[in-house]
Amino acid sequence: MADKESSISGDTEVTVLGLGPMGTALAAAFLDKGRGLTVWNRTPAKADGLVARGARRADTVAEAVAASPVTIVCLNDYAAFHRVLDPVGAGALAGRTLVNLNSGTPAEARAAAAWADGRGVGYLDGAIMVPPVLVGRPESVLLYSGPREVFDRYEPTLGLLGDSRLLGADPGLAVLLNTALLGMMYATLNGFLHAAALAGSADMSATEFADLALGWFMPVVLSPASLAEQAPNLDKGAYPGDFGTMTMNLNALEHIARTSVEQGVHAELPALMRELAERAIAQGRGAENYFAMFEVFKTPGR
Amino acid sequence: MADKESSISGDTEVTVLGLGPMGTALAAAFLDKGRGLTVWNRTPAKADGLVARGARRADTVAEAVAASPVTIVCLNDYAAFHRVLDPVGAGALAGRTLVNLNSGTPAEARAAAAWADGRGVGYLDGAIMVPPVLVGRPESVLLYSGPREVFDRYEPTLGLLGDSRLLGADPGLAVLLNTALLGMMYATLNGFLHAAALAGSADMSATEFADLALGWFMPVVLSPASLAEQAPNLDKGAYPGDFGTMTMNLNALEHIARTSVEQGVHAELPALMRELAERAIAQGRGAENYFAMFEVFKTPGR
Ligand SMILES: NC(=O)c1ccc[n+]([C@@H]2O[C@H](COP(=O)([O-])OP(=O)(O)OC[C@H]3O[C@@H](n4cnc5c(N)ncnc54)[C@H](OP(=O)(O)O)[C@@H]3O)[C@@H](O)[C@H]2O)c1
Ligand SMILES: NC(=O)c1ccc[n+]([C@@H]2O[C@H](COP(=O)([O-])OP(=O)(O)OC[C@H]3O[C@@H](n4cnc5c(N)ncnc54)[C@H](OP(=O)(O)O)[C@@H]3O)[C@@H](O)[C@H]2O)c1
Repeated sequence: MADKESSISGDTEVTVLGLGPMGTALAAAFLDKGRGLTVWNRTPAKADGLVARGARRADTVAEAVAASPVTIVCLNDYAAFHRVLDPVGAGALAGRTLVNLNSGTPAEARAAAAWADGRGVGYLDGAIMVPPVLVGRPESVLLYSGPREVFDRYEPTLGLLGDSRLLGADPGLAVLLNTALLGMMYATLNGFLHAAALAGSADMSATEFADLALGWFMPVVLSPASLAEQAPNLDKGAYPGDFGTMTMNLNALEHIARTSVEQGVHAELPALMRELAERAIAQGRGAENYFAMFEVFKTPGR
Repeated sequence: MADKESSISGDTEVTVLGLGPMGTALAAAFLDKGRGLTVWNRTPAKADGLVARGARRADTVAEAVAASPVTIVCLNDYAAFHRVLDPVGAGALAGRTLVNLNSGTPAEARAAAAWADGRGVGYLDGAIMVPPVLVGRPESVLLYSGPREVFDRYEPTLGLLGDSRLLGADPGLAVLLNTALLGMMYATLNGFLHAAALAGSADMSATEFADLALGWFMPVVLSPASLAEQAPNLDKGAYPGDFGTMTMNLNALEHIARTSVEQGVHAELPALMRELAERAIAQGRGAENYFAMFEVFKTPGR
């Protein structure tokens, strides 16, 4: 396939399908860097600004995909991906490469990769870890998964969008890691906001709380480096309780849950955290340290 | 009271009541810095090492409290505090100051402060934000709450234990903030561990995940500084949706919940996070940004 693809002399270097806020930002980044660009969107008017800046407008999806060796797809989900690409004839697609940046689940990404494989289409799945305004800047990160050879071939193009990281061959990895990192983000935001609400219940302002929580506690007590130190233990399943056990942590979690009720703030998140520690102990992990919660999270639970 | 207290010429500078792992570390920090120290513990043998290093052993609680102008109490909870101190005669206590470093709830701290007030005892409540090994190091932080004059008088002594921060006059503040920060810690740890479990479901090692999550995502996308920037908006209740709305975030949270089920990892935490976003939207916050979750957390919920 490498030979077949390299022989394609598309009219432009890259095509973007889907011009929502993100697709438009991707397309603009290519134009900013002077690349030949073809665009297509279901609602054609959204391409007007890009066309005025030199992008070529395709009238059909088939024409758009045929115009460049590589097409970036940025529709709202995998259902839209299939609605837009399934009707395109195998002839127009064969030998092309699709890089799909929709959000979705690993199963959807793997199904899309299998669909592409069945049509002789190169396929990378990807996820954009930044908002549209940051696309094209070096500090923006895009995660990819799929065959290394496909990634390497188009990295010079993809690299124009930001720091590109290939996670592995399993096409589900990029959306999975995107999902995992966003989950970590929401959990952390909820933790901060719930704690700020607890502080607020005693009339401490969020600004004063942030000074303590983010100016000192987070960077010092809860530093990324101190968490990263535990990663090898997670891989070994080693959770020595020397510096605090799950049972001691349950005690603290009981305080947090009880205090939330007492202070009249939301108590469901602390109640679930306490329950998770109780379950870890019920599974025999009372004498291990808190990171043993990893073992609880690896299973579906009830 | 200031006059009465300053006239007391205790035998030692400070007393420590309670010699569990933490009380022992506090006492050792005072000895390390050459201070005159009296100690008491229900199980007297736990004082042996400290006595060998020069601490004075009190045979009774009353004797211990009488020995120094200020007594640090470090028992396992407020119930133990009352069990130990209630029987002490008012005469032995009057004019002394107690600094209570037990963990507990704000209501327990306020009750202990009222108890002390009724006996003419100075009272500070406090919380130790570090494990015993870090006590006495400059990077350890202790939170206090209570009257500024009492804090100022004993700060030279308390400061030997670490960086001392007075949060305000409400005696419940120190344990409240301790609880809030620990809640933030557990939420963040859970977020990291759950995300590592999701990554692990596709055979990515925790070490590789940590490289991405802690080497890049946490410090860059989720930096303490970027969260702190939002604090003034929390104080104003201003959650402009320009860079992403609660409704968009619900979409991401649905992905996270769905992916957790699909990948066979624990799904309760993501399910609760999704539900919280749904409730924020039901409360009319769909067009606001994610920090509007603060308003949800400020109420008891159902
Ligand atoms: N925006 C962000 O901050 C951000 C960040 C990271 C990742 N992402 C991801 O990037 C992808 C695109 O997001 P977005 O913000 O650009 O907006 P979006 O609303 O998720 O997607 C809009 C695009 O999808 C098209 N579309 C939807 N259904 C379609 C269908 N049945 N047939 C043809 N086209 C269809 C729209 O065409 P019309 O214009 O004709 O409606 C438009 O081009 C999403 O998967 C999103 O999760 C977005
Ligand atoms: N260890 C930590 O990492 C840490 C960190 C921050 C805060 N703290 C807080 O510091 C406080 C002390 O913790 P700790 O780790 O030293 O151990 P702990 O097990 O919480 O407390 C042990 C101390 O409490 C005494 N005690 C318990 N019940 C008693 C009673 N009815 N009468 C008299 N004494 C009683 C014990 O006396 P005996 O020796 O006679 O049993 C011992 O001195 C706790 O509130 C804890 O939450 C601890």
